[in-house]
Amino acid sequence: MIFPIFFTFVLLLSTSHAADFCVGDLKAPESPAGYSCKKAEKVTVDDFVFSGLGVAGNTSNIIKAAVTPAFAAQFPGVNGLGISLARLDLASGGVIPFHTHPGASEVLLVTQGSIVAGFISSANSVYYKTLKKGDIMVFPQGLLHFQLNGGGYPATAFVSFSSPSPGLQILDFALFKNDLPTSLVAATTFLDVAQIKKLKGVLGGTN
Amino acid sequence: MIFPIFFTFVLLLSTSHAADFCVGDLKAPESPAGYSCKKAEKVTVDDFVFSGLGVAGNTSNIIKAAVTPAFAAQFPGVNGLGISLARLDLASGGVIPFHTHPGASEVLLVTQGSIVAGFISSANSVYYKTLKKGDIMVFPQGLLHFQLNGGGYPATAFVSFSSPSPGLQILDFALFKNDLPTSLVAATTFLDVAQIKKLKGVLGGTN
Amino acid sequence: MIFPIFFTFVLLLSTSHAADFCVGDLKAPESPAGYSCKKAEKVTVDDFVFSGLGVAGNTSNIIKAAVTPAFAAQFPGVNGLGISLARLDLASGGVIPFHTHPGASEVLLVTQGSIVAGFISSANSVYYKTLKKGDIMVFPQGLLHFQLNGGGYPATAFVSFSSPSPGLQILDFALFKNDLPTSLVAATTFLDVAQIKKLKGVLGGTN
Amino acid sequence: MIFPIFFTFVLLLSTSHAADFCVGDLKAPESPAGYSCKKAEKVTVDDFVFSGLGVAGNTSNIIKAAVTPAFAAQFPGVNGLGISLARLDLASGGVIPFHTHPGASEVLLVTQGSIVAGFISSANSVYYKTLKKGDIMVFPQGLLHFQLNGGGYPATAFVSFSSPSPGLQILDFALFKNDLPTSLVAATTFLDVAQIKKLKGVLGGTN
Amino acid sequence: MIFPIFFTFVLLLSTSHAADFCVGDLKAPESPAGYSCKKAEKVTVDDFVFSGLGVAGNTSNIIKAAVTPAFAAQFPGVNGLGISLARLDLASGGVIPFHTHPGASEVLLVTQGSIVAGFISSANSVYYKTLKKGDIMVFPQGLLHFQLNGGGYPATAFVSFSSPSPGLQILDFALFKNDLPTSLVAATTFLDVAQIKKLKGVLGGTN
Amino acid sequence: MIFPIFFTFVLLLSTSHAADFCVGDLKAPESPAGYSCKKAEKVTVDDFVFSGLGVAGNTSNIIKAAVTPAFAAQFPGVNGLGISLARLDLASGGVIPFHTHPGASEVLLVTQGSIVAGFISSANSVYYKTLKKGDIMVFPQGLLHFQLNGGGYPATAFVSFSSPSPGLQILDFALFKNDLPTSLVAATTFLDVAQIKKLKGVLGGTN
Repeated sequence: MIFPIFFTFVLLLSTSHAADFCVGDLKAPESPAGYSCKKAEKVTVDDFVFSGLGVAGNTSNIIKAAVTPAFAAQFPGVNGLGISLARLDLASGGVIPFHTHPGASEVLLVTQGSIVAGFISSANSVYYKTLKKGDIMVFPQGLLHFQLNGGGYPATAFVSFSSPSPGLQILDFALFKNDLPTSLVAATTFLDVAQIKKLKGVLGGTN
Repeated sequence: MIFPIFFTFVLLLSTSHAADFCVGDLKAPESPAGYSCKKAEKVTVDDFVFSGLGVAGNTSNIIKAAVTPAFAAQFPGVNGLGISLARLDLASGGVIPFHTHPGASEVLLVTQGSIVAGFISSANSVYYKTLKKGDIMVFPQGLLHFQLNGGGYPATAFVSFSSPSPGLQILDFALFKNDLPTSLVAATTFLDVAQIKKLKGVLGGTN
Repeated sequence: MIFPIFFTFVLLLSTSHAADFCVGDLKAPESPAGYSCKKAEKVTVDDFVFSGLGVAGNTSNIIKAAVTPAFAAQFPGVNGLGISLARLDLASGGVIPFHTHPGASEVLLVTQGSIVAGFISSANSVYYKTLKKGDIMVFPQGLLHFQLNGGGYPATAFVSFSSPSPGLQILDFALFKNDLPTSLVAATTFLDVAQIKKLKGVLGGTN
Repeated sequence: MIFPIFFTFVLLLSTSHAADFCVGDLKAPESPAGYSCKKAEKVTVDDFVFSGLGVAGNTSNIIKAAVTPAFAAQFPGVNGLGISLARLDLASGGVIPFHTHPGASEVLLVTQGSIVAGFISSANSVYYKTLKKGDIMVFPQGLLHFQLNGGGYPATAFVSFSSPSPGLQILDFALFKNDLPTSLVAATTFLDVAQIKKLKGVLGGTN
Repeated sequence: MIFPIFFTFVLLLSTSHAADFCVGDLKAPESPAGYSCKKAEKVTVDDFVFSGLGVAGNTSNIIKAAVTPAFAAQFPGVNGLGISLARLDLASGGVIPFHTHPGASEVLLVTQGSIVAGFISSANSVYYKTLKKGDIMVFPQGLLHFQLNGGGYPATAFVSFSSPSPGLQILDFALFKNDLPTSLVAATTFLDVAQIKKLKGVLGGTN
Repeated sequence: MIFPIFFTFVLLLSTSHAADFCVGDLKAPESPAGYSCKKAEKVTVDDFVFSGLGVAGNTSNIIKAAVTPAFAAQFPGVNGLGISLARLDLASGGVIPFHTHPGASEVLLVTQGSIVAGFISSANSVYYKTLKKGDIMVFPQGLLHFQLNGGGYPATAFVSFSSPSPGLQILDFALFKNDLPTSLVAATTFLDVAQIKKLKGVLGGTN
């Protein structure tokens, strides 16, 4: 019993792996579509598994919260697959302040405690709610949203994104944690100069 | 102090809501891009929140497992946003048998117990591993994969998809739980007729 | 001389117009891909032409600026075509305050005067420059950006978007021009309560 | 032996059919993504099968050629699936004159006779070759291309497209088979007025 | 008569070739969007033509069938163009057993003989039909499907895909032609161990 | 006051810049998705600003017109962002002859003078109009269109595209400004040989 067809298939399959996946090679050229692909023969199951979300982030900080990402840059197995995850830990009173993901929609899943979460639309409407364990909430791409632990206990959530590289722009960091001149921040936000200088001081911004 | 610019903005924003989201109206026409959009003025925060994943599915069944979806058809808030979720419950020995999602890649997050999960590539390579609580694993779009609770305790996982409507094709159901003639199944799978008839019997297939 | 082939072509062409364009019917169902298409036989050249950007917007307002959109909602000819435009008018000292377009990248073209424009990346880097007449600047999708007329003369610009419905989220409006509770704004922005109340007063926000 | 899980699955599967396919309902609203979907319960295997390409088109016409399309408008089963086909018949000396498909790339497969086929790039380079039975040639999206039967026998080919609605713009028809004024054609093509009038006469154009 | 505009155009056109095509350089880095592009100045018409489908595959094998691909890995001219082809040869009684293409929808065109073809949906519905010469059938992306020559004569078909790298996962190979442990196959398919061992024996699987 | 969270964020943000932008490195490998990305640390504001459109093109040529592109090849900041621009200058009587952009839809904005612009659809319908300063017109992807200055004064326009590399195929250049044999042009356009030879003479074509 001989199988000539297998030679055809072997040729086909060994060269067309990109149809299935493209594990990111973080040191090779990057294109608008993501990282270059690791050679198929070097890919192992560990490229598709990530254990970094199993440990709580350190919430001993000013926002009493931590974000642990499993984006393509940390978890190259999702490169090119249109999806990624992150873990949120919020101590009591912790907050992930207003932020956007320029490149993805997000679904938040509360796995411990309760979280007040919300977003604001282009039409300026406010959508927010207190979520309990097991609840999920979706935040459409690019819109300002927040998560806040208003309960007396720690809360944990896992967030999924519709991109392997969703990006993350935290409003306070964008405005106050760089060298954007105070006068320019004032002119483009209508915030008082004193307010801007105060937050620049807290976050380490200059100018 | 008057604000003529607001009139311009109000016009703009009240009509361009589709840039932000398109909550699915399940009874209106459906296009290849998803469901028609619910009118913006009828959208509330509850369209973006889903609580159905907070309760364990019933695992008193042949596979000792349950899948609870939060796809666009159950959770219309994700319509058009490129993402959805589902909950997996596996009793001890439970299994989500080999299946594919024709329309999405998947990331599995183990939140309780441990799960053996794996997939097979077009190149016929096998990638599987025992995942612990907090581990995540990615299954590239359209490839056969499975989840199995080999531990002595119940396991729970949440899966995220890169589409609001990922689809779900369970291999055993596709082959044995319909009226596809036994002779055709035999000819196209090389399974023995007795094996096919046995599984058709279990799953309720005919012909 | 007879042309049977024409019958084939007529059949083909009269029914496949969607390959070319899909002028939006604003009153018909809307999908995640945009508005439903106007019937091909009712489409005229005027569906593809828009004259609303030829007139300066009224800048007699608090920001001394005006935005006039030609998005799919105003200019249905661009529906489904991945592009739209808008006009910016800035009096001396006028500003389009920090804002994002959740659904599109933008290219700004200065046609009169000079404009200071800038954006901030996810990595918190600041990119801004004074643009003269004829200069163009690109703002990647979803990132906070601003335009400011620092010169002593009126300025005009035209902005192009990579989507027919780019959306527009103005930071100040999102935070201060709705009923989002002051305490929630304070907790999620670290702004002082007095600052929030002041801006809510100016912009008409409540709570 | 009871199967509670099946109830969950039945709910899931009966409502998420759009993940699999969206057979076009040609009379329902059309979106930029294609036709609205026929109700899943009315879909049969005949929606996925098309027999119209089995018969040669009538080549007794001026170009001695015929195009028989199986686009979404003729074969609604491909709606939303990113693919369609057509059949070309060319009598000896027959030609499909220069044309473009604005919405798709094309692969031509010669199944009978031989065909000279070619395209021209944006860089103005010419790529053409005589193709024999069994040869395939790809024409990148939107570029001018032609097919010509230079042999002494009839030729047949099947063309595949990367879109269910590729569109078809035949150069001669676009310029000479409508009411575009002769002076405008002359000014925008540099063709002589006599040449334009001659071809308008042949093809039925006016003005 | 001088042509300064040509200098502008030459600059433009010689550098923007990627808008037209991106012939794959199989040895350069690969991204999620496909292979890197061959330099434009080295591209010839032969990059766009492939003759490998003109010859019947060898059907002297266990499935009495052969698949000859013209995917991006064999035919780099289709790289990035959203389309590819393959040839199927089926001797009398030949079969392409149940398989999926994770990355593409497929249209099958019968050019010789007759073929029984079918697919199964996520909703577990069966769609199959006997196709004659000239018939076409579409198989939506990612769904299990088969082709079978039930006639007494050889059959030939050409299949088109909506991707240059559609992938190919053959069910029997995925389950029985690798080192996936028999116990795991049994647990995830409900097949009997004896059946699994038998097919592993035929196909060369281990464990 | 310590900020452990910042370490997490710094890790995240410094490695995920591709979510925001991918300034093209014109000398690195190119993929179907565009140019490889310049290293984030080398990107400056000047990568996002382009001043080349501020100067009128030279219209002392046969078409009395000039096109100045700001595509990805000239303005690498738009690489991967789905948008680009160009400037059109038309002396009195100037014309941008019939052409297509295979990879993008276009919106034309008249900023000086008046322009007659039009396009022809797959259905062979003609859409054209005289546009005044401030008017915009959209040309759907891949369709033949033209711009003509019928007024007695110079005209200027800026065109936006839905792709960073829209391509440009000018009909006359495609047919007459290369070595495509006259006989082949005649057979595929029905133009007279004398007409073809005349235009080849003007444009420098051979054969």
